[in-house]
Amino acid sequence: MREIHPEDLEDIAVGAAILGTGGGGDPYIGKLLARCAIEEHGPVRLISLDELANDAKVVTGGAMGAPTILIEKIPSGDEMLMALRHYEDVTGETVDALMPFEAGGLNSCLPIVLAAQTGLPLVDADGMGRAFPQLEMETFNVYGVKAAPVAMADERGNLAMVETEDAAKAEFLARGICIRMGGHVSLINYPMSGETAKRVSVPATISLAQDIGRVLREAKRAKKPPLATLIDFLKATHYGHAEVLGSGKVADIARKVENGWSVGIVTIAPFDGSAPYSIRIQNENLSLERNGKVIAVVPDLICVLDIDTAEAIPTERLRYGQRVNILGIRVPEIMRTPEALSVFGPAAFHIDAEYAPLGGS
Amino acid sequence: MREIHPEDLEDIAVGAAILGTGGGGDPYIGKLLARCAIEEHGPVRLISLDELANDAKVVTGGAMGAPTILIEKIPSGDEMLMALRHYEDVTGETVDALMPFEAGGLNSCLPIVLAAQTGLPLVDADGMGRAFPQLEMETFNVYGVKAAPVAMADERGNLAMVETEDAAKAEFLARGICIRMGGHVSLINYPMSGETAKRVSVPATISLAQDIGRVLREAKRAKKPPLATLIDFLKATHYGHAEVLGSGKVADIARKVENGWSVGIVTIAPFDGSAPYSIRIQNENLSLERNGKVIAVVPDLICVLDIDTAEAIPTERLRYGQRVNILGIRVPEIMRTPEALSVFGPAAFHIDAEYAPLGGS
Repeated sequence: MREIHPEDLEDIAVGAAILGTGGGGDPYIGKLLARCAIEEHGPVRLISLDELANDAKVVTGGAMGAPTILIEKIPSGDEMLMALRHYEDVTGETVDALMPFEAGGLNSCLPIVLAAQTGLPLVDADGMGRAFPQLEMETFNVYGVKAAPVAMADERGNLAMVETEDAAKAEFLARGICIRMGGHVSLINYPMSGETAKRVSVPATISLAQDIGRVLREAKRAKKPPLATLIDFLKATHYGHAEVLGSGKVADIARKVENGWSVGIVTIAPFDGSAPYSIRIQNENLSLERNGKVIAVVPDLICVLDIDTAEAIPTERLRYGQRVNILGIRVPEIMRTPEALSVFGPAAFHIDAEYAPLGGS
Repeated sequence: MREIHPEDLEDIAVGAAILGTGGGGDPYIGKLLARCAIEEHGPVRLISLDELANDAKVVTGGAMGAPTILIEKIPSGDEMLMALRHYEDVTGETVDALMPFEAGGLNSCLPIVLAAQTGLPLVDADGMGRAFPQLEMETFNVYGVKAAPVAMADERGNLAMVETEDAAKAEFLARGICIRMGGHVSLINYPMSGETAKRVSVPATISLAQDIGRVLREAKRAKKPPLATLIDFLKATHYGHAEVLGSGKVADIARKVENGWSVGIVTIAPFDGSAPYSIRIQNENLSLERNGKVIAVVPDLICVLDIDTAEAIPTERLRYGQRVNILGIRVPEIMRTPEALSVFGPAAFHIDAEYAPLGGS
C-alpha cells in the first residue's frame, strides 16, 4: 500500500494520457478533479492486486462518452460518487475497493477522485491496460466477469441502471443512455471479488502511469531525450516493448461524433514528404496505416506524442500542424490471448488485419 | 371488487382499442395474452379506487414503443413480470396493487396479464384516460407523482432502470433505452400510495372499456346502429360527450418510425368529394384538421372507427381504402385543468391550436 498525494497527480496524468492511446478523456480535467478531492478528503490508498483481500467486493468505474464532448461538458466531480451510491442502493451491496475500468487520461483520475471521496482503497490495476471505446472490451469480460449491473449517473444526478448477462449488450444499452444523458456520464460496473480481480485484471497500471510521467519529467530535467528514455523504460515493464512507428505533421483531421463516439481519421504527413500515415479513431487510436498497409493495430497502443515533450496529444486535442511522433507500445500478455483478441482485436473493430504484436511476441 | 374472466376480455379489448385513440398497442395481442394468463392462473380481481387501501403500494405499468414495431415484435407475455420483479429487487419494496398507466389497446390488457401472474389486484383506473405517446403525459405527473423509478424489461430479460426527478426526463431516458431494446419494452413506473392514487387517477377506465365493448356487442345483436348507441352511452359516462366528427375513406397514410414513435399524417377523403380530413399521429391520433382548421385536438380522443362495426382501427392497421367514421370523445374534467393541459394539451405536441373541449365544457 502506498498513498497518492496531490504531488503525484501530475506524473499520473502525463502517463495516463499516454496509456489512453488517444482516448480515456482529457487528463488535465482529471488531474484537477483529483487534486481538489485529495486536498479536501486526504490522500488515497493505492493497493496492489496482491494486497487486495480475496473476499473484498471490488467495483470498477470511470466515465463513458465521446472525448470531444467531455472537454466541453466537463464533469462536476460527483458523478462517480452518485453512480457508486446508486450501485449500492440498487444492489444492496457494500463496496470495499475501487478499480479504474481503463487506464487512460480522465479515467485513471476519476477513480482517484472517488477513492478520496469515499475513503475506499484504489486497486492498482484496470481491465484494458490502455483505453478502449466500448464497455465489453475489458479483460474482466474476456475472463468471465459480468459487466452488469452497470450503474450510471450524469452531472445533474439523473441515474440509470442496466442489468444484462452479455457485456456487449450492456455496452449497447448503456451507450444509448449515455447519449440521452448528453454524451458523457460516469458509471460503476464489473462487480467482482478480490480473488477474481487478481485473475482477470491488467496489473499495476496506475503505478505504470505514474512511472511514465516520472520518467519523462526526470529525462527533461536531466536533458536526456524524453522519448528514447521512455522507450527504454517501457521495455523493462510488463508491457515489454515500445518503438517509434513514424513522425510527421498533423495534416488532416476528419472527426465527428457518431453513435456517442468520436470517430474519424487523422492523417500525419512525414517531414520528408513521403507517404502519409493514417490513424483510425474511435475515441482511441485503433490502427496505424501507411501505403494501405497496417503498421500497428489494436490491442497494441498507438500514441500520438508531441515531438518535443513526448507528452500525449489526445484525439480531441489534435490540431492541424502539430509535430508529432507516433509511439507504439505492445500490450501485456494477458491482453494478447485468443480470447482477448476476439473481444478487442482488429476484428472487433471491423478492421481487416491480422494482429501481430509490435516487437514480436 | 369484481373478477375479470376470459369471457370479459373481448369487450375490454374492443373498448380499450377505442380509448386508445389510435394507439396503446394492438388489442388483439393483448387479449390473447390476457386470456392465456387468466386460464393459467385464474381470474383477476378488479378493484375500484374506493376499494383501494390508502396505505397500499401501487405501481403502474404497460408497454412502451412504436405500435408499428409492436405488431411485428410481439411481447412474450413475461416482460411486465420481469419489470415488476426488477422494480421490487431494485427498490426493496413490495407492491400491493397494479394499475395500467394508460387506457388503450394492449396497455389495458398487459396489466391484466401481470395481475393474473402475480395474484395482485388490478385498480380500475389509469393515468391518461386514453393513450398518449409519452411517459410524462399522465395525470399522475400532472398532480405531483414522480414517474421514476422506471423499471424496464425486454422480451429477452434485459433490464434497465431510470431514476430522475423529472417525468419528461424519465420519458427521454427510458425512450432511449426502449429504442436500444428494439423499439418495444415493458415497464413499471409511477409508484404511489393508494391514497395518492385516488387523487390523481382517471377512474373506472377498465370498466369503461368493457362497457364500451359490451354496448357495441349488444347493439349489433339488437340490430341497433352501433355508433349512435355508443355515443348515447358515452354521454352518460364521466367523459360526458362524444360526436361524429367526419366520415370518409382512408386516402393516404404517411407514416414512419422516428425517435421510437410511429409518426405521420393520415388523410381521410369524405365520400362526397369535399375537403379531406387530416389526422396527425404520434403513436396516437393527436389532432383532426380540415381546410387548415383544427376540429379536434389533444387531450380529447380522436378515434378512427370502421364504418360498419364501429370498432377502432389503430394507427398501425390503417390501410388505403378503409371506410371510416371519425369519433371525437371529450376527456373527463381531471384531464382538462390548466395543469393537465400544460402537460398533454396541444402545446405539449407543438400543435398551434387552442384546446376547446368537444361539446363545450
